[in-house]
Parts: sequence; structure tokens; C-alpha cells
Amino acid sequence: MRLSKIFTKTSKDIAKEEVSRNAQLLIKAGLIDKLMSGVYSFLPLGYIVLKKIENIIREEMNKIDALELLLPALHPKEIWQVTGRWQYEEMFKLQNRKKQEFSLGWTHEEIIVPLVKKFANSYKDFPLAVYQIQTKFRDELRAKSGLLRGVEFIMKDLYSFHIDERDLDKYYERVKRAYFKIFQRCGLAKLTYLTLATGGTFSKYSHEFQTITDAGEDIIYICHQCDLAINKEIIAKEHFVCPECSNKNLEIKKSIEVGNIFKLKDKFTKPFNFFVKDSNDKDLPVIMGCYGIGLGRLLGTIVEIHNDDKGIIWPLEVAPFKVYLISVDTDKSNVRIMTEKLYERLLKQNIEVLYDDRQHKTIGEKLFDADLLGLPYRLIVSAKTLSKNAVELKLRRSKAIKLVSFSQVEKFLKS
Amino acid sequence: MRLSKIFTKTSKDIAKEEVSRNAQLLIKAGLIDKLMSGVYSFLPLGYIVLKKIENIIREEMNKIDALELLLPALHPKEIWQVTGRWQYEEMFKLQNRKKQEFSLGWTHEEIIVPLVKKFANSYKDFPLAVYQIQTKFRDELRAKSGLLRGVEFIMKDLYSFHIDERDLDKYYERVKRAYFKIFQRCGLAKLTYLTLATGGTFSKYSHEFQTITDAGEDIIYICHQCDLAINKEIIAKEHFVCPECSNKNLEIKKSIEVGNIFKLKDKFTKPFNFFVKDSNDKDLPVIMGCYGIGLGRLLGTIVEIHNDDKGIIWPLEVAPFKVYLISVDTDKSNVRIMTEKLYERLLKQNIEVLYDDRQHKTIGEKLFDADLLGLPYRLIVSAKTLSKNAVELKLRRSKAIKLVSFSQVEKFLKS
Repeated sequence: MRLSKIFTKTSKDIAKEEVSRNAQLLIKAGLIDKLMSGVYSFLPLGYIVLKKIENIIREEMNKIDALELLLPALHPKEIWQVTGRWQYEEMFKLQNRKKQEFSLGWTHEEIIVPLVKKFANSYKDFPLAVYQIQTKFRDELRAKSGLLRGVEFIMKDLYSFHIDERDLDKYYERVKRAYFKIFQRCGLAKLTYLTLATGGTFSKYSHEFQTITDAGEDIIYICHQCDLAINKEIIAKEHFVCPECSNKNLEIKKSIEVGNIFKLKDKFTKPFNFFVKDSNDKDLPVIMGCYGIGLGRLLGTIVEIHNDDKGIIWPLEVAPFKVYLISVDTDKSNVRIMTEKLYERLLKQNIEVLYDDRQHKTIGEKLFDADLLGLPYRLIVSAKTLSKNAVELKLRRSKAIKLVSFSQVEKFLKS
Repeated sequence: MRLSKIFTKTSKDIAKEEVSRNAQLLIKAGLIDKLMSGVYSFLPLGYIVLKKIENIIREEMNKIDALELLLPALHPKEIWQVTGRWQYEEMFKLQNRKKQEFSLGWTHEEIIVPLVKKFANSYKDFPLAVYQIQTKFRDELRAKSGLLRGVEFIMKDLYSFHIDERDLDKYYERVKRAYFKIFQRCGLAKLTYLTLATGGTFSKYSHEFQTITDAGEDIIYICHQCDLAINKEIIAKEHFVCPECSNKNLEIKKSIEVGNIFKLKDKFTKPFNFFVKDSNDKDLPVIMGCYGIGLGRLLGTIVEIHNDDKGIIWPLEVAPFKVYLISVDTDKSNVRIMTEKLYERLLKQNIEVLYDDRQHKTIGEKLFDADLLGLPYRLIVSAKTLSKNAVELKLRRSKAIKLVSFSQVEKFLKS
């Protein structure tokens, strides 16, 4: 894509009212825009990143046999009264002109349970898993962390349904592996720990995926013997030892919860009387698990982790484009022609390239934006590089600059 | 995909409370589920259709140089007061715990205008166009038409910005062509008319795209000389003649508005003081157009148009799958083995196939579901067809059945 075709612009300054690094950088780079506290627009380049994260999650969910669907955001009061969660204070409530009451969904157990119950009425229908990627709302009092804590936010929520606990346990482990795959593809593998957290009333523990960063609002205790973390809320009760191996030598870190998974068992199926017949016509209680990832929070976390004083440093799989292409000496028509040629060649090879073809920008401004936008590769074509039949290549992650033969650029970028 | 892996089921009966054909058929086929009046879930097979429509629209929007972004659903009161539209009675309003007031967006002029204004401040930044595919809300009193009139609904809304009227006019014509392309790809070309409608205070006319069906709530007068329709609301004023050619011989039809386009000019840019400098440093008013398509409504309209007494008849490009594959005599292991082989072959050729591999269903039940789900092609493998080295093929649209050589199925389906 040609940068001249994108209306958003980078900014020299940091937005004054933003205190979080992710919002500061994403706004400065023109990837998101703040409408109000906790509510952001995704601008064209930011929306590409969001879509890439969405597709990674979709691919990994499909691999674990979950079916995608889409549930509404607007819910009737009655359905939330069944589980006693209508009173939840972070839930937005509203009325229509007929004075009927509704809520805006912050989670969807109350919607998915009766829905699945309509269709799954035999033990043969299980297990089954469904997920959606959908916008949620939460009346959040302290939305100061950019994309990390939203009032309006996009979530992937997965729900699995089972008729025996071992089957739930098995699927739960599959989801764990899928989650690690997602965080790995998003460039967070090394800093993300499976973390024990409170399990509610139905399990001893639930699991969180916590990514270490000072921007985090959680505190975890890492046991390097088990490669496992423990959320502070739990460790306090258990005298600062790893519940798995009793290791007392735990590392304390701030972290962001990028995912959570729960064995809900019959917590939400029971209120809806969700039983099915087994082969002997006996009632079996349906049990479930739920598994969440916030897409905006994940995006924000990636930025919190991958940046330097010049800007964002996108991991390859979620970068809005792979290559930032700059032509220097654009008044020399040969340089421009050769850059255009290279641009067309990269497009033909399906290499995602952002071509900074802006006419009235200095090379300094273009280099500034290249660093701020943080695409993995920067290519510069100039009279000097062309005199050597080459292109200058720099990885955003490193300082080293190298020359690559003009005819070998695609090959190099694909390797 | 294997039908045995999809938890939704078709139903023998029509949902009692639904009066619209689209909701009746989509619910019966297990493609959507009603949560409450005007609010539906898209189930796995229905969600595939929704995504296909979304992708058609996205492709056609990208072709007219519009950039995709995503705006929030939750809006602050203050921004709607700028244009005087806070009082709009169909807009849902709500408060947070701090008693701040918000609305749920039913359109996004109030959001996109100040957003674009932040970035586009020179005449050189124009024209530009942005669109989103996003969920909207409307406090709709008469939501009885299934997907045709939703309280919560997904829209594609496109906004274009210009600094001279001829440029707006030119883009407006490009959008018209893109819209016809979208409706053509969705199987509505023959029944969809460009329709003159009231233009508000700023243009003589706006344009709607009206699709003829008795399920429609609009009435249009078609001028077959101009291949143009006129919405009843306008024709009444102009004495029942075509405003283009003065033809008095107009055909009256009921129809559904599947799209609308407006030249808003400075209606929403002016309240936000959106001016830019021209080359002489003179203030230029920014003008705009807006262009909407409701995805659910489009899906509902497709079903209203394409059905018979047995079920839905999907147009090829929006069908959840291209082929419905059935194996008869499944107790004969050879038939099952050959069907499995054919299924794998079709998958390998990227032919979208839904394989009805359900063990406990009779052939009658499978044929019933094949007709109800309405995939374009039905393939049956049986001992009888295999004895002729063939597969039975039937188009959903026609009654004719033919035998296709077992080894030539892919070739036939791809042609």
C-alpha cells in the first residue's frame, strides 16, 4: 500500500491525557484514536493489526474444533436474572421506549447456554465448542490503560460443553496449548506464563495467561522450577510457595492478564436446567468451560512489550505490513522509477509492503515514521545504493544496516 | 465440513412467533436464533453466510479506494449535541455509574467527522473515503421482519470527504457502481433498482437501492424506460410521473431498501467547523457523502427472494457451502468409503463441501435438510450410482437430476 493513500498521520508529540505506553505509541503512530476514556477507534493501520490478531485467534480456535458464531451485544434483563447476575455493577443497563430493560454483554454464558440447550439434547451431541469474536462493554471506572482495560472492547470468547469431567479436562488442556500458540504467534511467548488464579466456587484454580511487563496491574509469583506463575491473590493464602512443587524461591513480577480459562462446570448450565439423556435415558448434567482473550488488550500488550524510544517494534505476524519502503533522492527520476519497480515486484510476490511515496516529506521525516510505525523490515533505495545495484535493508529490531542485491530482495525477505 | 460436527439442527416446524419468511427459513434451517425482538444470533452456518457477504462488500469497498477502520458503538452525549441529533428518539441512551450519558451508535457521522478532521487539514489530503463493518443499535418499535429490521444489526457504512462538488459527484457514481456489483454478487441484480428518494435539505434526491419483493415495507414506482425507480414518498409530490423522462406508465411494486447513498454535503462537517486551506490559504468547506448497506438486511433479502416451499436456494457466492454431499446405503461400507474419498478429493480441490455424514439420519431426512439448507449443488453417492461409476448431481434451483462420472466431479463443479 502507498502511504500517500492513508489519511492518518503520525504525530511528533505524545497525547497529553494518555498515561499508558501502548495508547501513547498507538495514537502517536496514527493506529488508534481515543473517543473517550476506555473507548478507541481503530484507524486503518491499526485495524490491519487487529485483523491479523483476529485471524491468528480464529485459526487456532478452528484447529481445536471450535465453531465460530456471533451472539448479540444487547441482552434482555430476564436472561441475566436466571443466573442472578443482573445486579453485576459493571454491566451497562438501558431501556427502550417501551421501558423494557436490557444489558450490554460483558460475557455471554447467559446467551450461549440456552442457545446450545435448544439444539444439544442427547449425550451424542457432546462434546461441542463454540466461539465468537465480538464487541463487549463494561462500566469500567478506571480505564486509564489504553487498550489494556476498555469500556468497549473486542473479545474472543470460547465456550465448551461436555457431559463428563475428564472430557472437559482434556479439552481444557487443548485450549491451553492453543492459547500458548496464539501468544507465541503474537510475539509474547517468552514473557507469558500460565498462572494459577482463584477458581471461583467450582474449581480450586482457574488459569490465567500473564505477560510480564511493568505496565501490568497484576502481580504474579513465578516458579521457574515448574515454569508456572501464581497470581498474588492466591499465593497470599498459601504462604508464598509454589502449590505444585513447594518451591519457596519465587520471582515477583508485574504482569498483564492476556487470557483466562475457567472450568465453569455446571455453574451456568444448572440455572438453565441443562441436562441431557444418556444411553440409559438417565439425566446427565451438562458441564462447561469458558475461555477468553481480549483482542485489544492483546494488541496493547504487544506494544507494551515491543517498543523502544523511537516507537513500536511489531512482531512479524502481527505487523500491519512486513516492509517499509523508502526512496531517497526522489527528485532523481531514476531512483523513483526503480523504487516503483521494486514496489510492484514485492506486491507481485505477495510481500506486504508499505511504500512511503509521500512527496513533501524529508528523508528524516520518513525515517522517523518508519521507526515509529515499527514494521519489521525497512528498505531504502537511493542513488548510492543503486550505484551498487543494491538496496539498503535494516531490521527494526537491530541497528545493523546491510546492502542486499536489488534483484535478490524478494528472496531475502521470504527467507 | 462434516455435518455431524455442527451442533445446530434443522427443525420440522416454523417458529410460531416469526411472521417473516426470512426469519422462518433461517431459524428452521438452524442458521440464526432469535434472542428477542429484532435481536438475532448468527449460528455457525449462518455466520459463514454473513462472512461471505462481509467479504463481498469489503472487496468492492477496497476497489473504490476506501480504507477500512472500526469506530466504537458507545458514544459520548456531547458529540451528538454538536449536530443536534442527541434527541433522535430511536437512539438508545444509557449512563455509566458516574452518571455520564452515552448513546449506542445507529450511524457514525458524529464520530467520523471530528476524527477525519484531526488528520486531514490540507486540500492535498482530499478526497478520502473510509468505511467500517460494525454493529449498530436502534430502538425500533416494529421489529417483526426478521433480519430486515433489527434492533441490533451489522452495517457497512462508508463516508467520503471532498473539497469540491464535482469530486463528490464523481465518487458518488463510483459507489453506485460498487453497490450494483455487490447486489449482483449477492444474487439480487435483476430485482434491484436504483431508486430516487427524498434528499433531505441538501440535495433534491438521495438514492436507495430497492429490491422487489412482497416482503418489502417500501413502495416504489418503476420507470422501465429509465431502468429507475422512484420511492412513493417522492412520487406523490410529483404527480406520478418519472422525474427523469416524464413517463407516466410506472409499475408499482413493494420492495426492501437494501442500500442507500446520500450526498450530505456540509450537513455534518459544518457543525464541526471542518474547513481546510486551499493553495491560496483560503478556507474551503469540506463536504461529504455517506453510503450504507445493512448486512443482516441484505442476508434476509437474499432469503426472501431465493426460496421455495422446501427451503432456501442460496446464490452461489453467498452459499454457506457450494456442495451438499450425501451417501446412501451407508451400511454398505464400500459406498461410505467412496463417499469419504470423494469428500477428501473435493476438500483438496478447495471446493466448499458440507458432508452429511450423520449416522442416524434416514436418506429422507438428509434430502429434507439438503433442500432446506439450500446449497447450490447436491451430490448423492449410492451403490446404484457407483455401479455406473458415477455420482448423482442435482442443482437446488432445478428439478433435473444427472449422473456425473465419479472421476469428473471436481471438473464439473469447477466449470
